Amino acid sequence: MARDDAPQQDMFASELRTHHTADAHDFLGFAPPASEDEALDWLQLIRSPRIGPTTFLKLLRKHRSARRALDALPDSAWEAGLRDYRPAERQVAEREYRAGQKLGAHLLALSSVRYSAQLSQINDPPPLLWCLGDVGLMTRECIGIAGARNASSLGMRLTRALAKGLGSEGAVIVSGVARGIDRTAHEAALETGTIGVLAGGVDVIYPRENTDIYEKMREDGLLISEQPPGMQPQARHFPRRNRLISGLSLGIVIPEAATKSGSLITARDASDQGREVMAVPGHPFDARAAGCNQLLREGATLIRNADDVLDALRPLVDAPQPGPVEGDAMAPRRANPTASNPDSRPPPPDQIRARILAHLGAAPLPEDQLIRDLVLPAAAATSALVELEMAGRVIRHPGGALSLGG
Amino acid sequence: MARDDAPQQDMFASELRTHHTADAHDFLGFAPPASEDEALDWLQLIRSPRIGPTTFLKLLRKHRSARRALDALPDSAWEAGLRDYRPAERQVAEREYRAGQKLGAHLLALSSVRYSAQLSQINDPPPLLWCLGDVGLMTRECIGIAGARNASSLGMRLTRALAKGLGSEGAVIVSGVARGIDRTAHEAALETGTIGVLAGGVDVIYPRENTDIYEKMREDGLLISEQPPGMQPQARHFPRRNRLISGLSLGIVIPEAATKSGSLITARDASDQGREVMAVPGHPFDARAAGCNQLLREGATLIRNADDVLDALRPLVDAPQPGPVEGDAMAPRRANPTASNPDSRPPPPDQIRARILAHLGAAPLPEDQLIRDLVLPAAAATSALVELEMAGRVIRHPGGALSLGG
Repeated sequence: MARDDAPQQDMFASELRTHHTADAHDFLGFAPPASEDEALDWLQLIRSPRIGPTTFLKLLRKHRSARRALDALPDSAWEAGLRDYRPAERQVAEREYRAGQKLGAHLLALSSVRYSAQLSQINDPPPLLWCLGDVGLMTRECIGIAGARNASSLGMRLTRALAKGLGSEGAVIVSGVARGIDRTAHEAALETGTIGVLAGGVDVIYPRENTDIYEKMREDGLLISEQPPGMQPQARHFPRRNRLISGLSLGIVIPEAATKSGSLITARDASDQGREVMAVPGHPFDARAAGCNQLLREGATLIRNADDVLDALRPLVDAPQPGPVEGDAMAPRRANPTASNPDSRPPPPDQIRARILAHLGAAPLPEDQLIRDLVLPAAAATSALVELEMAGRVIRHPGGALSLGG
Repeated sequence: MARDDAPQQDMFASELRTHHTADAHDFLGFAPPASEDEALDWLQLIRSPRIGPTTFLKLLRKHRSARRALDALPDSAWEAGLRDYRPAERQVAEREYRAGQKLGAHLLALSSVRYSAQLSQINDPPPLLWCLGDVGLMTRECIGIAGARNASSLGMRLTRALAKGLGSEGAVIVSGVARGIDRTAHEAALETGTIGVLAGGVDVIYPRENTDIYEKMREDGLLISEQPPGMQPQARHFPRRNRLISGLSLGIVIPEAATKSGSLITARDASDQGREVMAVPGHPFDARAAGCNQLLREGATLIRNADDVLDALRPLVDAPQPGPVEGDAMAPRRANPTASNPDSRPPPPDQIRARILAHLGAAPLPEDQLIRDLVLPAAAATSALVELEMAGRVIRHPGGALSLGG
């Protein structure tokens, strides 16, 4: 592999200050599992009902270990009004762990040095990732490519040129192992480095016709999934998967997309994550370019070739990594919300929960906006939100915004 | 004609505050010719050697009439070191005037109520325009269209859709009566209103194959030229003509253009004039779209249809008209240069001229920049520049920037 022969080959090699040190993960406030037993604690916690990545993170920060979080879960659920809450069984975690080992998959934990620093900065990074292949790819500079499954031959030619050009500059190409643009991007980047993010389990090939490229990527690239091995992909898994494609990446390129395509949602989510959104234009009479032209009108960077992508991303590599942003990343970034008054005594928990429920509606609201609106101490608000999420009273959306549950 | 049947039909009719009142011209500081004799003075002055539109304007402001400016010319030339300077003969003006009358052309003077207020605000508006057709079109909201002469059928279809769509909203389409995009735009807008700006005389049809559309426009549209009737267009006339297309317009749309095409220069000049620059995207593998994609990367507004153009221009119609800007109009507008100290006594003229010549180089420098750099009183600098321009020591470029002459 070209990659193995030239381990120093990296995009912007001369300018690169690597962010992938253990220090970069300090801000998470906890360490990765130090034993198999602790890894099983993590698995058991993340597979428990109503525990998503954000809640997992909060519980781990609050309780300092997954074990203690699991022990406290029944009480937290009771407080949240859930009378029949049960965490996942230990056996579920053990079965998943063994299944992964049997596949030869690596279980990578958030806050581990090998976990993508880029991904760890999104609002809802997966606590655990199943990995098949070269895990080292994840700590290189990644660029996402997403687009139409029924792409035109022009769109696929351009995708090939982009992926090859970016790969030859040392970038790793991240995509979703789907038909069309995804597959073309992975194929063109096989020799230089490519990561496929799967919607289902890391061993579940979808669509089946992509078996050949899947096998090649397991050999020469990297396949990752936050789902348990064996999980068949369901509709709700795809937007979750797409947040990982952009989350791993400095930016995401859309080489071809119609309006109302999933790629546009991916692009907007990427923008919410603070990622650079880049799109390839097309003639207005070509419906397959309509989504890209729409993104360009919304402020995406116009891309004609790999150089345009590198030009757009160079400032991001040179500058300190921005944290995730709420709302429209095309708009000027908001200043950090002013910390709520830390001196004042927080209202009692039931009152906080009531105020949160009264303030939220059906439309998702960013969490920091909620906390500012209600002028709540962040710690107390976080505790209340964990309970409300577990109770299903509050729904957390990809990107971290909140709305009222059913 | 639809235009005559519905004289009130105008773009953004409900929101439109018309700028085309006599008051709008007050800032020019002089009145249009009040007699045939005065019109001949204007013609004689503008046809004199080394007198371009900017110098004409300065002389008229300084001397208060073209007659007095003509009388003062030999002395000014002498002061500027020109020993053999001769203004144009009276006969030249008389011949041109008679030729225009014979064509049935109207001689429209800057500061006349019928002269385009939009055009009068550029740095170098023509003092006189020969007009054939419906002069009233010039005071309606105009939108320029420029692009490839060897346009693709796709480019021409899109041009037609744009011109028809904008025309039906009451906009007048301005273009250059060339092959390809220009011709297509004029044809599509014949019924709703179109202005052709000619590089040569208003009676010189170039290219000949456009005779049919030229004849139709004389009937149902408007043809204008700042050159004397009979003048064959020369290479240097085309960029001068293009500044009038954008000068008349709120903004200019480029439906299709390759790199290194004249349309890109037109677009950048339009941007220097403070005009909205709009471009239609194309696929990066289509060389005929490369110029447009380049403009889009430089900040032009992406246009898919007539509605996108109207959306881009609506704020300009609602807001007070901006004056021309130096440099890149895509960049934030500079604040007005601070007036140079009016109390201090200006240096002697020869010293001012020497300082200007020492400061200028081969690269064009905006005039206000020069005056700021040298901290000169504006009036004294203006006088010195008039003399230096007439002497050919300083060259004034389209857009008003200055460089050292040969």
